[in-house]
Amino acid sequence: MRILSGMRATGKLHLGHVLVLEDWKKLQDNGNETFFFVADWHALTTHKEESHIIYQSTLDIVRGYLATGLDPEKSVIFVQSAIKEHAELYLLFNMLVSVNRLERIPTYKELKENLSNRDLSTAGFLTYPVLQTADILIYKATGVPVGEDQLYHIELSREIARRFNSLYKEIFPEPNPIVTRIPKLPGTDGRKMSKSYGNIIMIDETSDSLKKKVMPMMTDPARMRRTDPGDPEKCPVWDYHKAFTYNQEELDWVVKGCKTAEIGCVQCKKLLLKNMEERLKPIWEKYEKISDEDVLNVIHDGNKKASEVAKKTLTEVREAMNLRW
Amino acid sequence: MRILSGMRATGKLHLGHVLVLEDWKKLQDNGNETFFFVADWHALTTHKEESHIIYQSTLDIVRGYLATGLDPEKSVIFVQSAIKEHAELYLLFNMLVSVNRLERIPTYKELKENLSNRDLSTAGFLTYPVLQTADILIYKATGVPVGEDQLYHIELSREIARRFNSLYKEIFPEPNPIVTRIPKLPGTDGRKMSKSYGNIIMIDETSDSLKKKVMPMMTDPARMRRTDPGDPEKCPVWDYHKAFTYNQEELDWVVKGCKTAEIGCVQCKKLLLKNMEERLKPIWEKYEKISDEDVLNVIHDGNKKASEVAKKTLTEVREAMNLRW
Repeated sequence: MRILSGMRATGKLHLGHVLVLEDWKKLQDNGNETFFFVADWHALTTHKEESHIIYQSTLDIVRGYLATGLDPEKSVIFVQSAIKEHAELYLLFNMLVSVNRLERIPTYKELKENLSNRDLSTAGFLTYPVLQTADILIYKATGVPVGEDQLYHIELSREIARRFNSLYKEIFPEPNPIVTRIPKLPGTDGRKMSKSYGNIIMIDETSDSLKKKVMPMMTDPARMRRTDPGDPEKCPVWDYHKAFTYNQEELDWVVKGCKTAEIGCVQCKKLLLKNMEERLKPIWEKYEKISDEDVLNVIHDGNKKASEVAKKTLTEVREAMNLRW
Repeated sequence: MRILSGMRATGKLHLGHVLVLEDWKKLQDNGNETFFFVADWHALTTHKEESHIIYQSTLDIVRGYLATGLDPEKSVIFVQSAIKEHAELYLLFNMLVSVNRLERIPTYKELKENLSNRDLSTAGFLTYPVLQTADILIYKATGVPVGEDQLYHIELSREIARRFNSLYKEIFPEPNPIVTRIPKLPGTDGRKMSKSYGNIIMIDETSDSLKKKVMPMMTDPARMRRTDPGDPEKCPVWDYHKAFTYNQEELDWVVKGCKTAEIGCVQCKKLLLKNMEERLKPIWEKYEKISDEDVLNVIHDGNKKASEVAKKTLTEVREAMNLRW
């Protein structure tokens, strides 16, 4: 399969991203052709007033890609805005999709309501699933790892591929979503992760800073005293265990200990801390070692490879549409 | 002033276009920097199902540009879809304009209602004034010759320029519309020009074919007999006289003769035919002599020149927006 996915350049990566990246790495290492990019144009839909963070985020994100094991020898790692052909295909695809269809995408209304502090009234935001479609189809990707909220967008991409193919020429495969069940991590206080809450564990913690974030984590509020039994399903620490504790015995020990008050929250968190550190330390170490120059080199090479594929597809598209310039 | 304008690649040029082109020629010959292009991407908004006519139209239109006196030594003559930077700037500008604002442009609703045989429900049609804005601003044009129906679009371009300048950096001048009073030509039957009515005089007639179109032209329906007085204002032949008869005495002769029934419609049309032929013959002759190869050479050179300017602007834009790839 040819796989494509990307992350929006709106800030540094956190643990939620790390889990996704580990998933991408599996796809990379399982013999697929993999394309991973940083979506800096997409970032403008929500962050046009803060474009200064987009460039730095782009570097940070690629650093994160590399630190978690994406390998430029195996994957094409590139930046969206470097491949101008995405913009051209986006323009052409805008001719093939109705305004109504875009307005009816459930996430459109939802995000507009939920991100009320952002200006999402723009044509750029309305048409951003069309740009996503261009991102995917320009590489003729057949598999797209996505979160469940993105399924609607893949459905649109499939529609646009079909519409183009029937109107002009059979050029695009219909991409399939790849939905992996990745444990959802809440913020350390149990609320949604948010920079303004200060409840996020980033990709580049240290043993010290991780400890300072894990040990005071919110737990089941019903467990007020050490002797009160707790309910893991109401405890954010348990969400983290599900992501970071692999050993079934340890998991059983946590659940049983919590429910019977045989173990205290501190013990439970110490185990989590140990497991997190074990898994994250190699990432931290790599992350620290990767210089901006390394990142720029990887992007530079990746852009070249992506560009070749994109140019080839665009040539086919222009021919099929009689745009021979 | 730097002037920019373009025509949509949706068919061959007719006399209405010739009048506009004569106006462009004046702007070209009056010491302005002039950019004239063929809008083939725009043509897709209404003609995506007939993309085969877009390429041929592009060649025909440039041939018309040259035949009416646009001069590749003085003007940059190019094709929109050859300058990929328009698409990128269009994408970026889509971030700066709200869907509401676009839906409120009076021509949007109007065209959607009037061209009910075309699918104008698309995101491409909604955002086409944004693409127009990119077409204009990428060359930092300060003057845009337009019909009155396009004034709303220039207003939008001015808004987008202001918005960009205030958000990022003072890069774009606000373009001014140049509205010249060009006589509006109806079809030869007095209805709106339309291919399906067969009432259009094209840019490349012959003396014979022109005669066959002018002599049977519709006249004031109240003037049934030779002896009935007529009203020039109700006669399409008079609309053509206003465009093609320069001599004031001749014009007076037509008006007076018609109103008093001193002259007949045949006499009136013969004078028109003489004047039209005088003005159009040089255009026909040039049009016939210009080969596809000539056209392609002009486009090739023009694209190169346009591309240089567009690339320079885009470099500034990307820097201002921190999109440094």
